[in-house]
Amino acid sequence: MKKTEVIERLLPKVTAASASVEHFAPSNIALCKYWGKRDQALNLPVNASLSISLDYLGSFTRVEPVENGVDEVWLNGHQLLPSSRFSQKVSAFIDLFRRDQDLHFKVDTRNNIPTAAGLASSASGFAALTLAMNDALALDLPPEHLSVMARMGSGSACRSLFTGFVEWEMGVREDGLDSHGVQLEQTWPGFCIGLVEIDAGEKATDSRSGMQRTVETAHLYQSWPLQAAADLSKLQQAIAERDFELLGQTAEQNALSMHATMIASWPPLLYWQPESVAAMQKVWQLRAQGMQVYFTMDAGPNLKLLFQQHDRAELLQHFPTLETVEPFGN
Amino acid sequence: MKKTEVIERLLPKVTAASASVEHFAPSNIALCKYWGKRDQALNLPVNASLSISLDYLGSFTRVEPVENGVDEVWLNGHQLLPSSRFSQKVSAFIDLFRRDQDLHFKVDTRNNIPTAAGLASSASGFAALTLAMNDALALDLPPEHLSVMARMGSGSACRSLFTGFVEWEMGVREDGLDSHGVQLEQTWPGFCIGLVEIDAGEKATDSRSGMQRTVETAHLYQSWPLQAAADLSKLQQAIAERDFELLGQTAEQNALSMHATMIASWPPLLYWQPESVAAMQKVWQLRAQGMQVYFTMDAGPNLKLLFQQHDRAELLQHFPTLETVEPFGN
Repeated sequence: MKKTEVIERLLPKVTAASASVEHFAPSNIALCKYWGKRDQALNLPVNASLSISLDYLGSFTRVEPVENGVDEVWLNGHQLLPSSRFSQKVSAFIDLFRRDQDLHFKVDTRNNIPTAAGLASSASGFAALTLAMNDALALDLPPEHLSVMARMGSGSACRSLFTGFVEWEMGVREDGLDSHGVQLEQTWPGFCIGLVEIDAGEKATDSRSGMQRTVETAHLYQSWPLQAAADLSKLQQAIAERDFELLGQTAEQNALSMHATMIASWPPLLYWQPESVAAMQKVWQLRAQGMQVYFTMDAGPNLKLLFQQHDRAELLQHFPTLETVEPFGN
Repeated sequence: MKKTEVIERLLPKVTAASASVEHFAPSNIALCKYWGKRDQALNLPVNASLSISLDYLGSFTRVEPVENGVDEVWLNGHQLLPSSRFSQKVSAFIDLFRRDQDLHFKVDTRNNIPTAAGLASSASGFAALTLAMNDALALDLPPEHLSVMARMGSGSACRSLFTGFVEWEMGVREDGLDSHGVQLEQTWPGFCIGLVEIDAGEKATDSRSGMQRTVETAHLYQSWPLQAAADLSKLQQAIAERDFELLGQTAEQNALSMHATMIASWPPLLYWQPESVAAMQKVWQLRAQGMQVYFTMDAGPNLKLLFQQHDRAELLQHFPTLETVEPFGN
């Protein structure tokens, strides 16, 4: 189905925009990854996924109407060329909201996490932009519809509309109105995430292209949906029972399986740097010594560690530059 | 089927052993990997595989009868403890030949390649031992049966009975008598293999256990047989048409797909070292600059480069310690 048709079902007519509005949305780390689309235009996923939102780490996005007839896109304090990839993606997303109206915006996004280094800043950016547009245009959309809109901007953004553990239900509808984030009721005080930054440079292959190459060229991708479905239900169980070992094992195997499908693509898609492998080996060594620490990785070279508050001090001795987040406090 | 039953069908009765016999067998590098067994005892594979034998690199194995009632196993000039893994594996293999006879042997194997570092020295060792036992016991087995015997010692040894390109036909028989190496008639002057040694230490997980863990725990393994079948036919075509690009791409994707199934196992099985990733990146960079160089990897950290003679000099500038082999001359 075309995006414009979906929008007809989803949004009221807009007429005018209010003044400057700013919203924050958190970055999210998937414990069961979104990897593969069943609909390219609508970002409808092949599999359901599950993430945890990163509390105060994410994107602040301010929108305000401008009169000069074109959108202006700012990222981390710098104005982008209208021809840049990110500008075009943002403008195309605003098209969904403005439809036939002659409304243009200055969009100013500031991330407090490294951009485009596999830390999902596009997820938090599009989620915050969705919230801001909803206010600016007085749309008053319910949370699920905000999540659907964010998904059409950047798939995993639909999870960044919520805090804590979030499941992205894949849905079955052709218009995708049932494919959105749902916040899980469970919390987990003392649950920690640690960011190991390997390389904050721009990625050689963005995750959208990486995903497509994998689906098209990796034989092994055929088993991915099965893996993801099994992992999702293990994670739900782990969260319900606060079984950290089950959660960690499942998340790590899920991430490595996703990377495995990329590695099996042609041309090979390896986001890992030599330092990524060294960091993985360090995690495995700590685990062999009895510490319950696991990792997950997205389409980039960085590791995100999963551990519990009582191991934080010792873990910091091995990863001194670790930035840690406790999504539910301790 | 039990090994002893297969042996009844395969070997004549033996009575006495002749004096010292020595044989050489080459190491082989699989372009389409053997990964997964449909019969653990007989080493019957899930998929057919295809390799190239490494000319002068391999194992020299000497056997001679001893009178003291136990086998003596020597490796690279050192006598091994009878309780060592390799000793026991060799003795169990000799059991297949001696059956109920009170015959024991000194087995002396010397590899001119690093042992147990993913360079398949167990393949060449068991192939050379098979040839030596065949002579020592005057069995006069035909090549296919020698290959079947070698396979029962170490799966990929069945390919090391032959030179050049060798296909291991998976076979369909329960006794495995049709699962053995077959030498391809084609040759390829100028075809080169280069060994990039990353780490010649002992492996943390031997390939037999690694294979089993993968089959048992990696969802993605389910797609492996499909991948291997497709790759085998591409390789046959590439060899028939001397299409180096097709051969290189297929071999590299096949190896990476095999590693992908390991990476997707639990606990994760990663044979790569940080230096392995750095070497892969170097190969990809050279390819981006136009050189036709590809790699394959086995259950270890080392890369084996595939290239053509006319690129040898330039490649050596980037990999100065490369040991190169030209299986068909130039």
